[in-house]
Amino acid sequence: MPELRKDPITGRWVIISTDRARRPSDFIRQSVAPPAVRVCPFCYGNEQKTPPEVLAFRPGGGANQPGWSVRVVPNKFPALGIEGELSREGEGMYDKMNGIGAHEVVIESPDHSLTMAEMTDHQVEEVLRAFRDRVNDLRKDIRFRYIILFKNHGESAGATLEHPHSQLIALPVIPKRVKEELDGAKMYFDFKERCVYCDIVRQEATAGVRVVTETDRLMVLAPWAPRFPFETWIVPKRHESHMEQTQDATLQNLAWVLRSTLRKLDKVLERPPFNFIVHSAPLQENHLPHYHWHIEIIPKLTKVAGFEWGTGFYINPTPPEESAKFLRESGLA
Amino acid sequence: MPELRKDPITGRWVIISTDRARRPSDFIRQSVAPPAVRVCPFCYGNEQKTPPEVLAFRPGGGANQPGWSVRVVPNKFPALGIEGELSREGEGMYDKMNGIGAHEVVIESPDHSLTMAEMTDHQVEEVLRAFRDRVNDLRKDIRFRYIILFKNHGESAGATLEHPHSQLIALPVIPKRVKEELDGAKMYFDFKERCVYCDIVRQEATAGVRVVTETDRLMVLAPWAPRFPFETWIVPKRHESHMEQTQDATLQNLAWVLRSTLRKLDKVLERPPFNFIVHSAPLQENHLPHYHWHIEIIPKLTKVAGFEWGTGFYINPTPPEESAKFLRESGLA
Repeated sequence: MPELRKDPITGRWVIISTDRARRPSDFIRQSVAPPAVRVCPFCYGNEQKTPPEVLAFRPGGGANQPGWSVRVVPNKFPALGIEGELSREGEGMYDKMNGIGAHEVVIESPDHSLTMAEMTDHQVEEVLRAFRDRVNDLRKDIRFRYIILFKNHGESAGATLEHPHSQLIALPVIPKRVKEELDGAKMYFDFKERCVYCDIVRQEATAGVRVVTETDRLMVLAPWAPRFPFETWIVPKRHESHMEQTQDATLQNLAWVLRSTLRKLDKVLERPPFNFIVHSAPLQENHLPHYHWHIEIIPKLTKVAGFEWGTGFYINPTPPEESAKFLRESGLA
Repeated sequence: MPELRKDPITGRWVIISTDRARRPSDFIRQSVAPPAVRVCPFCYGNEQKTPPEVLAFRPGGGANQPGWSVRVVPNKFPALGIEGELSREGEGMYDKMNGIGAHEVVIESPDHSLTMAEMTDHQVEEVLRAFRDRVNDLRKDIRFRYIILFKNHGESAGATLEHPHSQLIALPVIPKRVKEELDGAKMYFDFKERCVYCDIVRQEATAGVRVVTETDRLMVLAPWAPRFPFETWIVPKRHESHMEQTQDATLQNLAWVLRSTLRKLDKVLERPPFNFIVHSAPLQENHLPHYHWHIEIIPKLTKVAGFEWGTGFYINPTPPEESAKFLRESGLA
């Protein structure tokens, strides 16, 4: 008998098909092969092919020159434009707004064919510091209400360039899914007077079955009601609503934890395409007692079809207890 | 400047990248080639390879024998099981339920390699009648709260068998996306005392730019805030909350309209993979003044990536005014 599980934050139900638990090898895997090298706007020497950098970590040398280790540039084909005043208007019964926002690319390394799983901890830490610094800079712009940080790895996960990079989009509205998460967490807090994520960390620590790994500061877990096989979350153990306010020591530990998790996924699922998304509280909010930032990693193993589009319900053939076990037993630290 | 548009029903915002409006030929199209014939459980003579039929239209002959024109069978690998009592329980802070439901397959034709776009109007009408009859039968089971009818066409849209078929899943809960649509429509109704879909039909008829085609009974339109390029809706012009209560004459007209829309999409986008989903009111509700059933067709042309997963926000490179124009000017009735 399959099991229906409810995500405790958003209230989303998921069908866990426990009778036909799928092993990693059952997925049609579109491995992400190490990318071929060709003329790439993100490589050393091609700094002029991108818009001028907004941030770079480099020991010396001038802006928009080689020598950087991480470089952040505006997206050349932005989904939203940075210039102008926000204006909302109606068109009959409909509502619209001009597309003000920021769309930036975090070039994670000068090495074209490195993946994040293969980087050093220090390199990943610099990427995370670039995330934090950019959010702290962009939040000064009061037109922006939310910033989403994400990575698309592999063509079938939506990546259009091979060179390792992540993206950031600053939005003038709070997106629907984010609002759902915030509202669900608030409802739980109002009832329990505890943060739902803090409760998850506590319950998972006791149950053990869905934990992949744990450090002093972070827990890696397969969530109770995952939408996708091998969906994996990284959650800080101490309550914190905003990623951009996290301490250096947590970022440093996160670099190791994130890299280690990606390495385990690479080993168990043979270099799958994936997305990861940083979930954090809205920019203009102060510390929120009910919301807790975290990272969600989604390997791209199954296809989303009519049922999912129509219902927001997901059919997941791999129970989280199984996926956590595979990752725990991967033989990697 | 891109434009942000808000879906008037769910409140979902969408980014319409009007500066780089994409023509149909710009999409990497994975055409759905006419499928190859091999041993198929849905073909004539293989009726014993499926669970026994729950409905079939055939002029004569016995059940589970050839001679049918449309046949409905339980899914051999159901996402949910039909047997048992519903039981909800907790596991610490989490909630679960046993996976009770129905999962059926509507085999749309005995012809393995026909697509719905190529069928006769009569054949499509029989498929729609099978949808209606099955919902009217399953709604007698009070364990079910919602039935979703959908079609996955083409491998990249999630179809696992080539033979033309649609699916039906009866659920013991009202799915989140459906509830959002219902809640959004209710909020609009409470404020305006009019159905939001009826208002859409009226405004689109006047504006004209997003209308693909119109009959006495139905309107085909590109919605104001489409998530995907060439997303197309079919909406009854008269207010009706439940698809299963629609009149014969509307179903007959819908058969023509649906087939005609699929033929236009096939021509303009060169046989794209697609999903369609019937959106209808929950089973246990009587007539709802604020909800209006309709069909949403989603050609599978773009990839959903980290940004969409994280935010529920969609970046759509094709404004609906453009997609409606391409379909209107396809040269097909």
